[in-house]
Amino acid sequence: MSKSAPDTERELNDFYQEADQRHLIPLWKVTAQLLPAEPQTKVLPYLWKWSDLRRMANRAGDLVPIERGGERRVLGLINPGLGGKYAATHTLWAAVQIVKPGEIAPCHRHTAAAIRFIIEGDRSYTNVNGDKCMMSRGDLVLTPNWSWHDHGCESDQPMIWMDGLDLPLVGDLDAVFFEPYPTHAHPVAQINDSERKFSGPHLKPTWEKPEGRYPPLLNYKWEPTYQALKKIGEGAASPFDDVCFQYLNPHTGGPVLPTIGCYIQMIRPGIHTQAHRQVNSAVYHVFEGRGYSVINGTRFDWERGDFFVVPPWAWHEHANEGKEEAILFSIQDTPVMEALGLYREQPYQEHDGQQKVIGTFES
Amino acid sequence: MSKSAPDTERELNDFYQEADQRHLIPLWKVTAQLLPAEPQTKVLPYLWKWSDLRRMANRAGDLVPIERGGERRVLGLINPGLGGKYAATHTLWAAVQIVKPGEIAPCHRHTAAAIRFIIEGDRSYTNVNGDKCMMSRGDLVLTPNWSWHDHGCESDQPMIWMDGLDLPLVGDLDAVFFEPYPTHAHPVAQINDSERKFSGPHLKPTWEKPEGRYPPLLNYKWEPTYQALKKIGEGAASPFDDVCFQYLNPHTGGPVLPTIGCYIQMIRPGIHTQAHRQVNSAVYHVFEGRGYSVINGTRFDWERGDFFVVPPWAWHEHANEGKEEAILFSIQDTPVMEALGLYREQPYQEHDGQQKVIGTFES
Amino acid sequence: MSKSAPDTERELNDFYQEADQRHLIPLWKVTAQLLPAEPQTKVLPYLWKWSDLRRMANRAGDLVPIERGGERRVLGLINPGLGGKYAATHTLWAAVQIVKPGEIAPCHRHTAAAIRFIIEGDRSYTNVNGDKCMMSRGDLVLTPNWSWHDHGCESDQPMIWMDGLDLPLVGDLDAVFFEPYPTHAHPVAQINDSERKFSGPHLKPTWEKPEGRYPPLLNYKWEPTYQALKKIGEGAASPFDDVCFQYLNPHTGGPVLPTIGCYIQMIRPGIHTQAHRQVNSAVYHVFEGRGYSVINGTRFDWERGDFFVVPPWAWHEHANEGKEEAILFSIQDTPVMEALGLYREQPYQEHDGQQKVIGTFES
Amino acid sequence: MSKSAPDTERELNDFYQEADQRHLIPLWKVTAQLLPAEPQTKVLPYLWKWSDLRRMANRAGDLVPIERGGERRVLGLINPGLGGKYAATHTLWAAVQIVKPGEIAPCHRHTAAAIRFIIEGDRSYTNVNGDKCMMSRGDLVLTPNWSWHDHGCESDQPMIWMDGLDLPLVGDLDAVFFEPYPTHAHPVAQINDSERKFSGPHLKPTWEKPEGRYPPLLNYKWEPTYQALKKIGEGAASPFDDVCFQYLNPHTGGPVLPTIGCYIQMIRPGIHTQAHRQVNSAVYHVFEGRGYSVINGTRFDWERGDFFVVPPWAWHEHANEGKEEAILFSIQDTPVMEALGLYREQPYQEHDGQQKVIGTFES
Repeated sequence: MSKSAPDTERELNDFYQEADQRHLIPLWKVTAQLLPAEPQTKVLPYLWKWSDLRRMANRAGDLVPIERGGERRVLGLINPGLGGKYAATHTLWAAVQIVKPGEIAPCHRHTAAAIRFIIEGDRSYTNVNGDKCMMSRGDLVLTPNWSWHDHGCESDQPMIWMDGLDLPLVGDLDAVFFEPYPTHAHPVAQINDSERKFSGPHLKPTWEKPEGRYPPLLNYKWEPTYQALKKIGEGAASPFDDVCFQYLNPHTGGPVLPTIGCYIQMIRPGIHTQAHRQVNSAVYHVFEGRGYSVINGTRFDWERGDFFVVPPWAWHEHANEGKEEAILFSIQDTPVMEALGLYREQPYQEHDGQQKVIGTFES
Repeated sequence: MSKSAPDTERELNDFYQEADQRHLIPLWKVTAQLLPAEPQTKVLPYLWKWSDLRRMANRAGDLVPIERGGERRVLGLINPGLGGKYAATHTLWAAVQIVKPGEIAPCHRHTAAAIRFIIEGDRSYTNVNGDKCMMSRGDLVLTPNWSWHDHGCESDQPMIWMDGLDLPLVGDLDAVFFEPYPTHAHPVAQINDSERKFSGPHLKPTWEKPEGRYPPLLNYKWEPTYQALKKIGEGAASPFDDVCFQYLNPHTGGPVLPTIGCYIQMIRPGIHTQAHRQVNSAVYHVFEGRGYSVINGTRFDWERGDFFVVPPWAWHEHANEGKEEAILFSIQDTPVMEALGLYREQPYQEHDGQQKVIGTFES
Repeated sequence: MSKSAPDTERELNDFYQEADQRHLIPLWKVTAQLLPAEPQTKVLPYLWKWSDLRRMANRAGDLVPIERGGERRVLGLINPGLGGKYAATHTLWAAVQIVKPGEIAPCHRHTAAAIRFIIEGDRSYTNVNGDKCMMSRGDLVLTPNWSWHDHGCESDQPMIWMDGLDLPLVGDLDAVFFEPYPTHAHPVAQINDSERKFSGPHLKPTWEKPEGRYPPLLNYKWEPTYQALKKIGEGAASPFDDVCFQYLNPHTGGPVLPTIGCYIQMIRPGIHTQAHRQVNSAVYHVFEGRGYSVINGTRFDWERGDFFVVPPWAWHEHANEGKEEAILFSIQDTPVMEALGLYREQPYQEHDGQQKVIGTFES
Repeated sequence: MSKSAPDTERELNDFYQEADQRHLIPLWKVTAQLLPAEPQTKVLPYLWKWSDLRRMANRAGDLVPIERGGERRVLGLINPGLGGKYAATHTLWAAVQIVKPGEIAPCHRHTAAAIRFIIEGDRSYTNVNGDKCMMSRGDLVLTPNWSWHDHGCESDQPMIWMDGLDLPLVGDLDAVFFEPYPTHAHPVAQINDSERKFSGPHLKPTWEKPEGRYPPLLNYKWEPTYQALKKIGEGAASPFDDVCFQYLNPHTGGPVLPTIGCYIQMIRPGIHTQAHRQVNSAVYHVFEGRGYSVINGTRFDWERGDFFVVPPWAWHEHANEGKEEAILFSIQDTPVMEALGLYREQPYQEHDGQQKVIGTFES
């Protein structure tokens, strides 16, 4: 004898109530939420103006000392879509850091890996495990997972750089470990040692043995990077990104860090790229020039110094309508997606019923 | 001329207020929160009793049909520490699924990868991309990232199994894609085909070429697994886990899925393991026997059918004080930690100051 | 003013003479010889009858003791095409070894790697680095590069097995190192330890860490191998090899040794395979049954115990016209070709002008 | 009843005679020969003077045209120890090639891989699969396994370079395939394209996907290589090789070819290295300067342009007693040894009984 509808409804309610009490969730009630057709990211596209960032950084320099405990004078970009999470995208931390003449940001290490991309100043350094890496505008400096590092400024002008970390991801993974160095600064064992050994193009010293995926080169200098951009820019490039390099770990040919890919990109004058979308997120810093990006249909105008975010699976294209080259540096969580078999990308086509998706065991 | 303290305080407050408005966070205010000495997980150790799970699963079978949209009749374990997140640990989904005689859970695919570990019933199957994998108690069945799959029960008794997915992780990474199959069930191209080809111990058919990291074997049968457990159990084993196997992808020698490691473990009678902790999290299912685990100082008694969670970086040890073997199946996010260079483990020592940590470029 | 022909000829002769004196070769004189369109191997297809091999092995047992210096009672198969080179193919050594009751072949190690495939006898063993691997008919036992090994017979009957080594290759590479163990036999640390740990199908003990490419499993037992052959043989197989497994290194999913691939193959009753050719060479041992292979147009009839060679790039097909299954074990230098980017294969087609070649950056 | 000695001897002789007839070798008779304590190479250390090589190359230019069939105007270095084998070492071909103004050496491809290292001339090129690589002194140009290539000289002076191939190895492996291109020269699709894309230091264009181990960079230019040598030479280097770089495949971080490692090495003024030995063989070309090497106790004085061979497992040290830097380019078969698990090296110590050997599962 079948039950009446109200009976069943009451039984269902009882069931749901007990499930809740027993820390169980009936999947069928949340399937649509958990398994959307495409990623429903909360990450928003957003742009921070350099005029603000620079002013605020200098203001912080006036107001706040660098001390143990606080450790760094850093302004982190907070994505407005993430409900207060300390993150530029769901996985990436991006920030502006300032060190003033004579200061040393105290030595520590953490399992979150970091990159620095130098925006202004010189005669400053990051000391990575005793290798004092001297930094200038345009340099990319790595402090891999669990390497000791302190930063100092030996100039009479402050240095400002971009910080990029995988901290939101490593935090979400419950894998953050941190340790302060016993003294304020790590002893300097050598100066520019990794750069001395690994700056040659696709050359490695025979007596240096790889240590797992630890990157042997810690400072990718600007000048040869720029020369390479100019040279490759003499010919054809990507329809989606124009001229774009990924920085490599010389020992593996892979990304510089297991969790962060670093890219340097030139949008040549007159170029307007095709749109595409990728499952990874990105934080861009405008190193030189001006232009704009269209992200999910919204135009973001950018100029030298600005930062902006491209969320996961967001259509994006870049344009440079001026006469000068525009250069973008970016950090992206692509290596994470590739390592976990989740990478996807898709070119935009106006009439698309059958748009090709590349990735996730489909290629 | 130096400013008075109240002046500075007001300036700082103004600064903090502007930072907030401009979507910037001064790192020094949150350093301690973002960079703890050790992971501060919200994941709680917790145990679900099989008597409840089984009763609730059967009750769901009485009350709820399997339909497109809801897709599956699944009760997900919700970790009480995660504030309502649909997850057993921060990265792992674990659940109990029931399919009744004659039912077919509709075919779909998603970028979240899944495993099934069969608890009771037989003459049921998972059809993975057309390979109909017949399932019995103790079998481990894979539905890798983006593979079509439907489940059916051809028995006169329901089948109940454990589901394990990387859904919380893939969700946090904004990488969930989902697609329903055009019809209710995928055509069956063959029966037990992967098992036919790859069931041999450390053998592969020469005519099958690997497709990236896609696992060629989809069904790891119970009987040979158990025989291997018995055999290895005749000698020495791990001080921390007693007898413990990881299931392998035959083509790579690595984990069965890029995001989920699967383990089968026997705690032999009389064994009480040493404690250790690992950066990964785990969900255990008690396949056979009884015993207990001490997790961060709390004892969890378990018996056949129970599920329990070991949080990241939680001290844990296992004990079997009975006369019968105890067998635990578990899913762990270890492959994620290893792929991203974040894996760590530490053996417990009572008086140590200098406990050795293994991993993260330290080994 | 041009020279007369005889002048030029004399000058050329003088030139060639000086080149020869100065240890120089004018390439243009030998291009056709050095760069043939296809491999011009000297390796001949050849078959050794088991009746002869067995008789000779036993005769050797009567006549020759096992002693330090000679080290082993082994009859090596000499390919008739190689001008006396001690080799079955240009890269592979294959042989029949006999150990009599109570004998122990003295312990040594060498950089040439070896496999044993057991033909008759039991209660004998190979002690590999202290792990005493008990051997029976059909077992595959590895002694990797530079591992200590001695062999003993504890039965009242002799044991006879096939030896397979990469000795001709390692010799040609000038990379043979050899060391006798200080005493006659290596101490036994455990019995069947690798087998205890790694006999499970696609399972590995979590507490055993890989040591590079050193294979963790040293004894691939016959019974589960045969069961796997039977099972896979219930369905479709390779058109060229019928049912054929490669043995795997569990830690890598690759070949058991960097230089030798091991294969077990079943030609089912009524099967006559299609011909193909591969750049690698092979030595086959007929483990069970009878049949024939056509190698470059010549038919070689084989039966239980026989050995035969398939040269590089030789067309070959296999046939079993009887009612019983035929089982072939083989060693092949395929891993060498793959590691060096030289692997190629080609299916035979009668009218082919455009036969597809697979491999060498062409695929 | 035991036999008398003469009886046994006759039986043994009969046995050996039958073994020989049946194409069998009793191992115990040849153990010492096949398994020496250390490699017994026939490769001799040898030095070719540039004054001879250059004169002979130019003389060949006068006497011999470049034609289909002969294919190349090349003088190969023949190691005097190898009994006439066309090889500089057992595995490596090294040679001097000359192309005169207006000539094009016809297009072909082969499975032997090749490198060119330019000694004199400019405005010449190697066209690799349609990428016209312009060459100058000091450039390293690759023609990987099975890539089409022709060489042309557009200057009014001849170009002379070093050829390095794995031809002896690939020949010994019976894996040589050769194919002439249908026409004399391959169409030029682009000029310096790989160099345009990959010349940046540890940068790769994001839109270029790796094709297996095929090296994406075909021309390693001299100038940045030299700058890198100078820079690394400002600090500490290898005690055995002084300053020494290996050229890398950007996509893998490994050797430029699976079979040939390429090295550029600077012996700084006043340096006399420590001796060591390695299982691999090497052919050196003296690019700049003068000095000497002591190989197995014999001193070989070298100056600009000379070639010399270091045999496998030969003690060797290098000295530069002058005031100018000396630069050596070399090809080595190290990647073969590493791929096959056979690599070993050993530092020299005067009183050593216990010299440490590195490699072959011993490290």
